[in-house]
Amino acid sequence: MEVKKIFLPESELPRQWYNILADMPTPMEPPLHPGTGQPVGPDDLAPIFPMNLIEQEVSTQRFIDIPEEILKIYTIWRPTPLYRAYNLERYLNTPAKIYFKNEGVSPAGSHKPNTAVAQAYYNKVAGTKRITTETGAGQWGSALSMACAFFGLECKVYMVKISFNQKPYRRLMMETWGANCVASPSTETKAGQSILAQNPDSPGSLGIAISEAVESAVTGKDSKYSLGSVLNHVMLHQTVNGLECQKQLAIAGDYPDVIIGCAGGGSNFAGHAFPFARDKIYGKNIDIIAVEPLSCPTMTRGPFAYDFGDTVQMTPLLPMHTLGHSFVPAPIHAGGLRYHGMAPIISQLILDGVIRAEAVPQLETFEAGITFARTEGFISAPETNHAIAMVIREAIKAREEGKEKVILFNWSGHGLVDMTAYEAYLRGKLSNHALPEEEIHRALSDIANFPKPKQYRAAKV
Amino acid sequence: MEVKKIFLPESELPRQWYNILADMPTPMEPPLHPGTGQPVGPDDLAPIFPMNLIEQEVSTQRFIDIPEEILKIYTIWRPTPLYRAYNLERYLNTPAKIYFKNEGVSPAGSHKPNTAVAQAYYNKVAGTKRITTETGAGQWGSALSMACAFFGLECKVYMVKISFNQKPYRRLMMETWGANCVASPSTETKAGQSILAQNPDSPGSLGIAISEAVESAVTGKDSKYSLGSVLNHVMLHQTVNGLECQKQLAIAGDYPDVIIGCAGGGSNFAGHAFPFARDKIYGKNIDIIAVEPLSCPTMTRGPFAYDFGDTVQMTPLLPMHTLGHSFVPAPIHAGGLRYHGMAPIISQLILDGVIRAEAVPQLETFEAGITFARTEGFISAPETNHAIAMVIREAIKAREEGKEKVILFNWSGHGLVDMTAYEAYLRGKLSNHALPEEEIHRALSDIANFPKPKQYRAAKV
Repeated sequence: MEVKKIFLPESELPRQWYNILADMPTPMEPPLHPGTGQPVGPDDLAPIFPMNLIEQEVSTQRFIDIPEEILKIYTIWRPTPLYRAYNLERYLNTPAKIYFKNEGVSPAGSHKPNTAVAQAYYNKVAGTKRITTETGAGQWGSALSMACAFFGLECKVYMVKISFNQKPYRRLMMETWGANCVASPSTETKAGQSILAQNPDSPGSLGIAISEAVESAVTGKDSKYSLGSVLNHVMLHQTVNGLECQKQLAIAGDYPDVIIGCAGGGSNFAGHAFPFARDKIYGKNIDIIAVEPLSCPTMTRGPFAYDFGDTVQMTPLLPMHTLGHSFVPAPIHAGGLRYHGMAPIISQLILDGVIRAEAVPQLETFEAGITFARTEGFISAPETNHAIAMVIREAIKAREEGKEKVILFNWSGHGLVDMTAYEAYLRGKLSNHALPEEEIHRALSDIANFPKPKQYRAAKV
Repeated sequence: MEVKKIFLPESELPRQWYNILADMPTPMEPPLHPGTGQPVGPDDLAPIFPMNLIEQEVSTQRFIDIPEEILKIYTIWRPTPLYRAYNLERYLNTPAKIYFKNEGVSPAGSHKPNTAVAQAYYNKVAGTKRITTETGAGQWGSALSMACAFFGLECKVYMVKISFNQKPYRRLMMETWGANCVASPSTETKAGQSILAQNPDSPGSLGIAISEAVESAVTGKDSKYSLGSVLNHVMLHQTVNGLECQKQLAIAGDYPDVIIGCAGGGSNFAGHAFPFARDKIYGKNIDIIAVEPLSCPTMTRGPFAYDFGDTVQMTPLLPMHTLGHSFVPAPIHAGGLRYHGMAPIISQLILDGVIRAEAVPQLETFEAGITFARTEGFISAPETNHAIAMVIREAIKAREEGKEKVILFNWSGHGLVDMTAYEAYLRGKLSNHALPEEEIHRALSDIANFPKPKQYRAAKV
């Protein structure tokens, strides 16, 4: 009988994360202090992150040991199974072999706990008693809540108010794991109070929630702030995924010709693709594709430029593909992909030709998700459907070219808490949203006078 | 490092289901035709079930081959991992070893697909084009919808209207898998029309939904009806679970002293426990505990008597523990345990002393679920929390007795689509519900004049 899932025993769980900063074809440009224009150092970050994570953020050591305490918790869901999508292959009548890594088996239902558990651990070791963060739809907030429960840390989540009200399930998951989750803007911070003073009915935004979480970390006792994507150490923690895939594909006797993942801030994509990107840097021929929404085309349309990581201009200036920190994406259901920027490492690897980017329209992603559910069974998160849409394109291309390609993609999470998005699709209430040309021009004009990275590349507009 | 999960490779997936009817200490008493009082034969069931499933329903063959087509689909989530609950053990400071079988990894999130896939397959083979069923909270309806998608069958689900409106997520899962799900009472059947004529605002009930599904099967073209619990062939299909556990515990070098599962109609419990119950019948010393809600105490308070399987008196009379088919359980959140009867096989095994029953109050189950989530990570279905509550009692007992017992339980499904139940608990809005003495007396008086099984045992009231 066909083998559907390739399991690794726990004894084969990777003992180290892979740090791609050791193998970058071109050195990264540094983050800059927005006031001075000078590179940011560890001390600048110390008020909000513990020093052990700051050290990881800047480390260029190729492999970094995963502490035993983290490995123990990883075994709750890791190694995750690598699936062969036989049913989808047959449905598409493609000669391609399609593999997917199932990160949905974690208790939180996504890849996010891979870094949440690591960040909670390092904070615990550093003496942190309380972690603050922001969350949109709640994937990140719920993962961090669970991680904090494991290490006995307090967890405070500022959740964008419109999501807090419309999407109660992930908020309730956070509370079940013991976190305190409030709607942002809240009355608990000066940042929240000032927004509410201007607009008592503010629906909130990720930018506002970040401001609240950072303020709460800086002013709270023994408190630090935690971020679920974009930063180098987050990408690092996620690489346990791709390292497992390498072992699993070796068992299957295959090696990927194409690797696909969706990318918002970039962490699930990075974790899946970086160990293979290393092979590519040293000569392997792999097509590595990061997929984004056509309505938030950060990588395919944005310049490589210095910009703030957040809307409210609190972070250092990061060298990355960006649509401008004031860019307002269309209200697509893939909340995790509605981000103006892209992780600096991924941005650099796009410049270097290691990774390429594609953008897909919303309706195609849900159509792909429905096809996947009816063939492979699993209902995917709206973000994950972006990867599936691209997989289907590539599998059809393989059929047309008559090539038996090996396609690997990251099934970053299930959609069981996102069913209202499917409802909107099934009822014909979703649209593709036009390419936001005017909004791109407007938001990019806001960063026109920022310092430029050496490798500055203009927007494709 | 501790091994957290015991995996079986797909090559070790059981090739046969175990049929406990071959090993019953006492022969089963037959279902009776309510009109004639005579035993029901295969022909009586032919209008609603395909003959191959009717044959399984009455078979006494000990092992029944699982067709290759079903095995192929099982591999989407099977074999499921057997977990060691180290974190819960440490939290409880118990010398007991606690193992749990994770059935939540199926795409539908519960054990229900084990029989849904089998039933869809046998219907397909028998020429059925369309399957009808009823569902309450939607666990069963969603599992059958997915199974029908795999085999290209139409699926029609009558969902109790109050759940249809209050719990949209599982309904949307059904639609995503391509099923047609309507609120019951509907205008599509005579049964539904007649209820609506009396009460246009009827919230519906499982009894009404069964009537609609059966009518729709009998009157529809190439249509059959499907049931998700209670019947012998449903228990049979679920035994793949316990058979896997036997292999996994052998790998761990352990054998259970205590086996625990929640029981509504009985199918997840049966599937988990029956292969071990066989060992017990032939001499092994195991404490096998079926757990029910204190507010719906079918096994602990109901008589062993003949009664209808459904509220509207359409089924044959089944010999079982029952509170009376007109019993209305309190509105607890474990919808899957709000059933007046119990599978005849389980009922018989209770009489025979192979299985014992315990009842737990609602608040204890949610407290147990919270403890489990904060130690083991996974958020459990409200039904599953009943098993966890009993596990915690047994683990504490083991600590008090200083015994290193091996406790095995069935983690029948996750609760990510049931978060509103956790919300009610966390907000202090749930109660235990008093033991429904008066309602038990009332409902039992309705069946006082029914034929009595030879082993009739009076209610414990």
